[in-house]
Amino acid sequence: MNIYHDIYKKELLNNILPFWEKHSIDKTHGGYFTCLDREGKVYDTDKFAWLQGRQIWTFATMYHQVEQNQQWLDIAKHGADFMMKYGRDAAGDWYFSLNRQGQPLIQPYNIFSDCFAAMGFGALYKIDAQEQYAEIATKTFQNILKKSNDPKGIYTKAFPGTRPLKNFALPMILCNLSLELEHLLDKGVVDELIEKVVYEVMDVFYQKESGLILENVALNGDFVDCFEGRSINPGHTIEAMWFIMDLGKRLKNEKLINRALEIALNTLNAGWDKENGGIFYFLDVDGRPMQQLEWDQKLWWVHIETLVCLAKGYELTGSEACRKWFEIVHEYIWSHFRDEQYGEWFGYLNREGKVLIPAKGGKWKGCFHIPRGLLQVWKTLEKIEEHKLKTF
Amino acid sequence: MNIYHDIYKKELLNNILPFWEKHSIDKTHGGYFTCLDREGKVYDTDKFAWLQGRQIWTFATMYHQVEQNQQWLDIAKHGADFMMKYGRDAAGDWYFSLNRQGQPLIQPYNIFSDCFAAMGFGALYKIDAQEQYAEIATKTFQNILKKSNDPKGIYTKAFPGTRPLKNFALPMILCNLSLELEHLLDKGVVDELIEKVVYEVMDVFYQKESGLILENVALNGDFVDCFEGRSINPGHTIEAMWFIMDLGKRLKNEKLINRALEIALNTLNAGWDKENGGIFYFLDVDGRPMQQLEWDQKLWWVHIETLVCLAKGYELTGSEACRKWFEIVHEYIWSHFRDEQYGEWFGYLNREGKVLIPAKGGKWKGCFHIPRGLLQVWKTLEKIEEHKLKTF
Repeated sequence: MNIYHDIYKKELLNNILPFWEKHSIDKTHGGYFTCLDREGKVYDTDKFAWLQGRQIWTFATMYHQVEQNQQWLDIAKHGADFMMKYGRDAAGDWYFSLNRQGQPLIQPYNIFSDCFAAMGFGALYKIDAQEQYAEIATKTFQNILKKSNDPKGIYTKAFPGTRPLKNFALPMILCNLSLELEHLLDKGVVDELIEKVVYEVMDVFYQKESGLILENVALNGDFVDCFEGRSINPGHTIEAMWFIMDLGKRLKNEKLINRALEIALNTLNAGWDKENGGIFYFLDVDGRPMQQLEWDQKLWWVHIETLVCLAKGYELTGSEACRKWFEIVHEYIWSHFRDEQYGEWFGYLNREGKVLIPAKGGKWKGCFHIPRGLLQVWKTLEKIEEHKLKTF
Repeated sequence: MNIYHDIYKKELLNNILPFWEKHSIDKTHGGYFTCLDREGKVYDTDKFAWLQGRQIWTFATMYHQVEQNQQWLDIAKHGADFMMKYGRDAAGDWYFSLNRQGQPLIQPYNIFSDCFAAMGFGALYKIDAQEQYAEIATKTFQNILKKSNDPKGIYTKAFPGTRPLKNFALPMILCNLSLELEHLLDKGVVDELIEKVVYEVMDVFYQKESGLILENVALNGDFVDCFEGRSINPGHTIEAMWFIMDLGKRLKNEKLINRALEIALNTLNAGWDKENGGIFYFLDVDGRPMQQLEWDQKLWWVHIETLVCLAKGYELTGSEACRKWFEIVHEYIWSHFRDEQYGEWFGYLNREGKVLIPAKGGKWKGCFHIPRGLLQVWKTLEKIEEHKLKTF
């Protein structure tokens, strides 16, 4: 590995975190602004629950894993206060979005609002052991499990029975959430959940013929020949594969780690744009025309999550393919996503790698994938380098 | 005008209609396939209500306005039979999509399924005066009016009261539907509806400061500073402006026609991509970052609807700006959207004008905008040419 952990550490501490510290705090009404333009100016004041929960997680985790920086603790609690006050309906489900003042805009139709709230409050409890944080995290987690067989509930538009599908995103997130909330849950619950989600991800959604993971399958895992059934989301898969590697490490299951890496590399081979570089946002497993107009775009989270997966894969297996791919993706990221002029990274590039939307944040991009990814890559490369020093 | 009606007539009769006649008929289960790849092969068999209703309309209208071709009548009735059998729920609302056999897939969450069904059956009644067709069209139309203040009904995700918005698409479609169904409705109903929708489109959604039409406004027409409130859809606006010109003609209201043309030209000036040519899919009225990742793409319907608007604008006003723009848009369409090799037009180009998705049809593109537009341009240019001959 010719790339050193230090540049990832510096990028996190000197570029990314300061950008959000400086621009994202709503000092008047609480919570975080995430709609920040290229320079960091707020261009919209709505508050999206995914991104509030995720930013709580980010600053709490930085405090926990990097440095006990009081400002980071304050920022995490600043978001938590806002979300405790305004984020939930009477049933404890998290709204999708709120206006600047905290009034609900969009109903709790999206179970990932709950996932990221649980993750945020779970991380906050690690650094400030207030019972209310633990309660919110565990109650939300139980709600997620209760809703997991019908995550859209009354908001689903599917006609019952004709073509029941299940979606990859929830079991994927649960792979990560089970470890994120381990400190709050019974060991039995965690062990059982891990077994279930690993099976779902690696057997039910995995398609043998292609060696890839499908975004949607029939309830029994069968392939369904429709737009949703043919859809592949390379970034999703590769992100899930590092969640699985983390679980493989915990379970001391080398075979699981190797399979996860194999699927990640299959996906990268299938999803890499041979003409322009970068990883496509969506693919059709049969190569048929897609419904997603944004299919060929290059998104920040896809690329940083891939880097994490490759770093972990290299750390755990020493795979040469991992090392090579790491350098290719590293090079793509540093030459395309990073904004030398105003800091932070662009989120959305077109197929050719040109900036499509110059904002640093919005409805879906906040303070999460980049800092989490940089932290993971930094820590993983550090371990690899230490190991090298030891062996030489 | 240096472009003659004949090339539009030929394009309609020799390229577009034969493509759909040949590839879109499901002889086994009824209805139309719309997911046709570049060559016309079926790549997905789901049936989308918008596109079923629209294709009924297209073939019925061709029979009515172009030629009493028995095959066209048969195709229109082929789709109508399928939709009568499978298209509606018990309340008479039209499902969004069905599987190949006609079982419902997606609930009737989308009022435009109803709009295009009404339009299709209304057109069919003109060429085959069966009472059941009239009944379906009028009953569906009454349902639309009933739902028009809350078109998403139980499927809305908006939290009641925080930020009530209304959307431009429904009053826009009603401008057209009111004329399409005129033969089935009481004159009083039509007159009242027209007055209402013209006011909505030209006053409520029109924004004085920008001279443009907003996609979403507050219930009282005020600008709302949020993603939805700042959104401009140039294709939508320009299409609506030719609906308004048609109404202006009917109402003999020259002022209304002139205003519609002015708004269309404002929109074209704002929406034209000065670097690459073509009309953007979305804009933010304040130039802020957008949430639509597909904002810079060039879509077939936007361009053909613009051509219709410009042809009508020129016919009705003789505007020199219209003539110039017509030639620019004509040139862009013929050199970018048309597939010389396999017929029909591509639907989705990237910003640079390269093909993004090579299919000829899908979930949203069927047999509608292009044939309707070609017919309108052909007939309008014919009138302009006749008029010229008379004046020389």
